[in-house]
Amino acid sequence: MNFTEGGVCAPKGFKAGGIHCGIRKNKEKKDLALIYSEKKAAAAAVYTQNLVKGAPLLVTQKNLEIPYAHAIICNSGNANTCNANGKEVAWEMCRLTAEKLGILPTDVIVASTGVIGQPLNIEPIKNGIGPLVESLSYNGSGAACEGIMTTDTVKKEVAVRFTIDGKTCTIGGIAKGSGMIHPNMATMLVFLTTDAAITPRMLAKALKEDTDDSFNMISVDGDTSTNDMVCILANGLAGNTPIETEGKAYEDFKKALSMVTTVLCRKIAKDGEGATKLIECAVLGASDRATAKQVAKSVICSSLVKAAMFGADANWGRILCAIGYSGADVDVTKIDVSFKSSAGEIAVCRQGCGVDFSEEIAKEILLKDEITILVNLNAGSEKAVAWGCDLTYEYVRINGDYRT
Amino acid sequence: MNFTEGGVCAPKGFKAGGIHCGIRKNKEKKDLALIYSEKKAAAAAVYTQNLVKGAPLLVTQKNLEIPYAHAIICNSGNANTCNANGKEVAWEMCRLTAEKLGILPTDVIVASTGVIGQPLNIEPIKNGIGPLVESLSYNGSGAACEGIMTTDTVKKEVAVRFTIDGKTCTIGGIAKGSGMIHPNMATMLVFLTTDAAITPRMLAKALKEDTDDSFNMISVDGDTSTNDMVCILANGLAGNTPIETEGKAYEDFKKALSMVTTVLCRKIAKDGEGATKLIECAVLGASDRATAKQVAKSVICSSLVKAAMFGADANWGRILCAIGYSGADVDVTKIDVSFKSSAGEIAVCRQGCGVDFSEEIAKEILLKDEITILVNLNAGSEKAVAWGCDLTYEYVRINGDYRT
Repeated sequence: MNFTEGGVCAPKGFKAGGIHCGIRKNKEKKDLALIYSEKKAAAAAVYTQNLVKGAPLLVTQKNLEIPYAHAIICNSGNANTCNANGKEVAWEMCRLTAEKLGILPTDVIVASTGVIGQPLNIEPIKNGIGPLVESLSYNGSGAACEGIMTTDTVKKEVAVRFTIDGKTCTIGGIAKGSGMIHPNMATMLVFLTTDAAITPRMLAKALKEDTDDSFNMISVDGDTSTNDMVCILANGLAGNTPIETEGKAYEDFKKALSMVTTVLCRKIAKDGEGATKLIECAVLGASDRATAKQVAKSVICSSLVKAAMFGADANWGRILCAIGYSGADVDVTKIDVSFKSSAGEIAVCRQGCGVDFSEEIAKEILLKDEITILVNLNAGSEKAVAWGCDLTYEYVRINGDYRT
Repeated sequence: MNFTEGGVCAPKGFKAGGIHCGIRKNKEKKDLALIYSEKKAAAAAVYTQNLVKGAPLLVTQKNLEIPYAHAIICNSGNANTCNANGKEVAWEMCRLTAEKLGILPTDVIVASTGVIGQPLNIEPIKNGIGPLVESLSYNGSGAACEGIMTTDTVKKEVAVRFTIDGKTCTIGGIAKGSGMIHPNMATMLVFLTTDAAITPRMLAKALKEDTDDSFNMISVDGDTSTNDMVCILANGLAGNTPIETEGKAYEDFKKALSMVTTVLCRKIAKDGEGATKLIECAVLGASDRATAKQVAKSVICSSLVKAAMFGADANWGRILCAIGYSGADVDVTKIDVSFKSSAGEIAVCRQGCGVDFSEEIAKEILLKDEITILVNLNAGSEKAVAWGCDLTYEYVRINGDYRT
């Protein structure tokens, strides 16, 4: 199993593209993206658990009642959520896409990201759909990725190549994250493609299992979006015997999927709105996995921990505080905490109490742009990882006046 | 029932004082506070639900097994939490205080606030206890209030005068808040005094009931502190027939208590770390009270809503988003949202969808320093209020390097 280039176009038979159609004012920014599988693909998706759900999610859910799809259309600049005519507009996006591609509108997955509660004008999309379809290419993953970005500062693409019964398979993905990132059972926008042959049932199972350990373990700001969605298309062009049950092939597929999603998680967290660094919390020694996850997520969600990380301040008391209010049943007198980065590792707390440590060395470790907070609960052998970022002036600036 | 001056010294028989003893480096800042009741008082307290509990809370809990107390001692600059010798130091604070005042050490309530995980040196307290007791006076509430402040920028004092069976009674209070404020079942440091006669059982009941609607409805940053405590001393010097059961006198006492705690809540929220304004979320039309509280609290906790309020941006979609992920069972297609301040009121969302509104007028309303977000769930007649503040550059600056 190893990484490769090409994002969502790395698997066989996938094209992608992205253009500026006019939803966003800034003409330099793409605002419409398309991913197309030449062969109709098995499809699975997970959605936000927010009761306020974007209209595109409702349309996609309906379309995926038959779990196959041909294309994914997505706009940025407007979430098409809390609008009276939202579902009509989302469906019209599917219809226009299908018409140009010569496929069924029910075979289109639709997504939107941007401001909530402002009517989405279909006109720019109607005019843009032609050029968008023309822009499709085997190396269009980057353009599609740009089309779904909002306040993201970097493109988030990845692909992994692996083998199932002698056939080379690939899973690729693109993602957008940045703000309103605190997925609950589902996540931000992530589009995954694969040429592995797998039944819709096993594909849905793999995606659900993976999401609980990957995207649901990220938080940028504690706000669960109304438009989170992760979806995957599997077109089977790799030619492997279709995965229909659990077993080695399924496990290999899940392993490759996890490689892809873990990279995207780290990229999303590191590019959180205003973030200057990635904060990873790795919890070890938990009595059960749910406890490990609860603790890891509580630490990366703490505003005070996030602000301390921004200031490269080894204020470990805030980490213990966040563990204490996590709701997890832990013995706080057993907890060990260390900080780790490419500059080294330093223990700061043993058995719930502070240890003497060099503030200077701690600072050096925390000044790096990827920090791991290691928490050992010393109560078992289960573990979990969560990803977040620091809280910065820039987060406040971006969100103090997002709409103008 | 009306407000009066004097804070914790407004009720009969209470003295207070505050000094700088040397726990904090800055000599301009007081770091030790004392409240003393001339007559031993019925006492009740509620504590943080964080599993990591400050040593002073554990000592106070033990002391209040017999629910009477004579004095409250509190230091700022060090939380005395996650220290191996924490309980010994907290007990020593009680012992030194009792010795100077000629009372029992078990009649002393002890509290600390400040950095977690740094040993608290008893020496400055030992040397300061004499001058502290000498500083006690009937108008020392302000000095005591200064002694418990950390990053607070204003003193938080209040008192209310009311009548029980013809006798004038008073409840006074001081509070510290600022950061790590997201109380769960208990709260930040709040010290309340009253001269009303009331049994410990009824006092504890009144405090618990009030806290659920007052301090537990505040959030500055979502972080539940390890050292939250609200306590109340009732010395009975008002001379009313002691309140021993529910009934008119108990209801009047609770009403006065609520006037006191609501003012403190608003003061704590408005002086949240880095805050430029108070954000109040008033939820109406809920099917039950728990739903109203859950919705109100979710809105004031949202980083994105907080940042939008900082920018005076009427981004109501973020409010709907926060209601949607609150966990409350609401029908999002029924929700109305308005913004209100001293500059007026404006409707921005009706039945879950946006309405046309003047951005200019909305901005004028949101530029004020006390904003109310009105949410009508249109599903019943229950309501609740929660208090928070905006998220600012200053919050990040304060917490990026709190310890140095």
